[in-house]
Amino acid sequence: MEQSFLAYLKGRTRSLPQVTVGIGDDAAVIQSPASPSIVCTDQIIDGVDFAIDEHDLADVGFKAMAINLSDIAAMGAIPTSALVTLTLPKQNATKIAGEVYEGILEAAKQFDVAIAGGDLSTYDGPLAISITLLGHVSDGDPWLRSGAVEGDVVLASGGFGGSIGGRHLRPTPRIELASAIRKQATVHAAIDVSDGLSLDLDRMCASSGYGVELDVDAIPIHPDAIKLSAKTGREPFQHAWSDGEDFELLLTVAPADAEQLLAADLPAPLTAIGKIVGRTGLWRIHEGKYLRLSPQGYIHGE
Amino acid sequence: MEQSFLAYLKGRTRSLPQVTVGIGDDAAVIQSPASPSIVCTDQIIDGVDFAIDEHDLADVGFKAMAINLSDIAAMGAIPTSALVTLTLPKQNATKIAGEVYEGILEAAKQFDVAIAGGDLSTYDGPLAISITLLGHVSDGDPWLRSGAVEGDVVLASGGFGGSIGGRHLRPTPRIELASAIRKQATVHAAIDVSDGLSLDLDRMCASSGYGVELDVDAIPIHPDAIKLSAKTGREPFQHAWSDGEDFELLLTVAPADAEQLLAADLPAPLTAIGKIVGRTGLWRIHEGKYLRLSPQGYIHGE
Repeated sequence: MEQSFLAYLKGRTRSLPQVTVGIGDDAAVIQSPASPSIVCTDQIIDGVDFAIDEHDLADVGFKAMAINLSDIAAMGAIPTSALVTLTLPKQNATKIAGEVYEGILEAAKQFDVAIAGGDLSTYDGPLAISITLLGHVSDGDPWLRSGAVEGDVVLASGGFGGSIGGRHLRPTPRIELASAIRKQATVHAAIDVSDGLSLDLDRMCASSGYGVELDVDAIPIHPDAIKLSAKTGREPFQHAWSDGEDFELLLTVAPADAEQLLAADLPAPLTAIGKIVGRTGLWRIHEGKYLRLSPQGYIHGE
Repeated sequence: MEQSFLAYLKGRTRSLPQVTVGIGDDAAVIQSPASPSIVCTDQIIDGVDFAIDEHDLADVGFKAMAINLSDIAAMGAIPTSALVTLTLPKQNATKIAGEVYEGILEAAKQFDVAIAGGDLSTYDGPLAISITLLGHVSDGDPWLRSGAVEGDVVLASGGFGGSIGGRHLRPTPRIELASAIRKQATVHAAIDVSDGLSLDLDRMCASSGYGVELDVDAIPIHPDAIKLSAKTGREPFQHAWSDGEDFELLLTVAPADAEQLLAADLPAPLTAIGKIVGRTGLWRIHEGKYLRLSPQGYIHGE
């Protein structure tokens, strides 16, 4: 199926100026508007990350792009091109590839990403979609997890929890928000929330060698967390704290920058949820005492 | 297993100047010595491209890098960094990942490639290794399949056929050769032979809108093709013509450049095997008449 599907795909992919040679040669040729390149790769697999019998395959394709776009956003970068590797069950391979590509192409169009190439295989196994996304930072440095400084304000985009209700398949990667923030402030550290707000916040703090004093009541709880709470009987806050797949951004900035960002008109809401402190870990202050909070979320392979 | 394996991997990967942020952030940050970037991706799967019970997993890891390095060489480019995605059967996942990485790291060391990142998943399915390789051209343009010009000499590196005897697992990607050629000549078109000499030659010619008049007797037959021939009863030439996985380069250059390259001291032997002609397809001249030769090789998914 490879040759004929590639011909179909060549017709479906738009030509964008950043890719001078796309599908059909030994490799793709990608013009970088600026060095360095920001590159990430992430895959999702039937039976692990989604269920082929339950989920719309266009949604699954969209999600495979979105999780990578979210990583690019967390670097404060702009995506340019993608390489898409599909590993397809032999039965209905072409049909499945076509449906998955509907969602991939939709995300590509929405975020101006060129499909520069990829690979297709059929085998005796479940559908797997692996995407490598390339991008660049328009100016200045990429945002790392390790750059937080004591006294920084921790900002969170959107709301948290309950994405399993459906939002996890069609998240809004915060590309536009990251671009807008870059124009108005100096971000010290950033991470996107894929495994859980508390877990990814803890990772960013650990990378930076600091901790965070949280304003727990300020953490924005998504309406989906409240809906899910009615079914699970757990507090909405617990879902916001640990659910994961929110694909929101956590950022640290100096207090003056935080003030400016919180007053600005941005493509998505930001909330101040805490400040970076010297003692490592996640903390809240209760009656004048530091109480340690334990990060919870999805730990891969456990 | 992901966190602990990534920690192990971080210790094993050398830091190279081209990757300023590697494993452990949301994305990798890769310094491009020059634009454009040359990017390719290719995967191999247990049961399709190798057999986990028969093959040394370090060899399989080496091969997963080598097939991508060969694509980079066919663009006349130099590799800089790799993203490695392993999809691992749940049973023995860490052991398998470790063995595969032995070969990946060996190839990375040999060709000065930084492991910039990747992804690890476990699932109920066969081992799959997907690698995205990034590179750049030191100066001038990348070599495309489409650039052949009438009158060009077709050059082939190394020898063809019989790689299934073992050479296919440990090929020599022609990175060094491509670099040396770029310094001495202007390559018009290039492709690497993965699916078969005749099939990939036909693809390059078709991309360029030309054909080739072959000097069939000049085609370099690998000793492995002769060995294999003793088992299969087919002519060694037939193996050279159609076997595939040789990972040699086919190039077209102007006659004067061909003469210079054939006289030069290069990291691998080159042989002139034909010339580019106006009529499309593969041809030989026999008693003054054009006879059409039919391309044969491995066609994916058939």
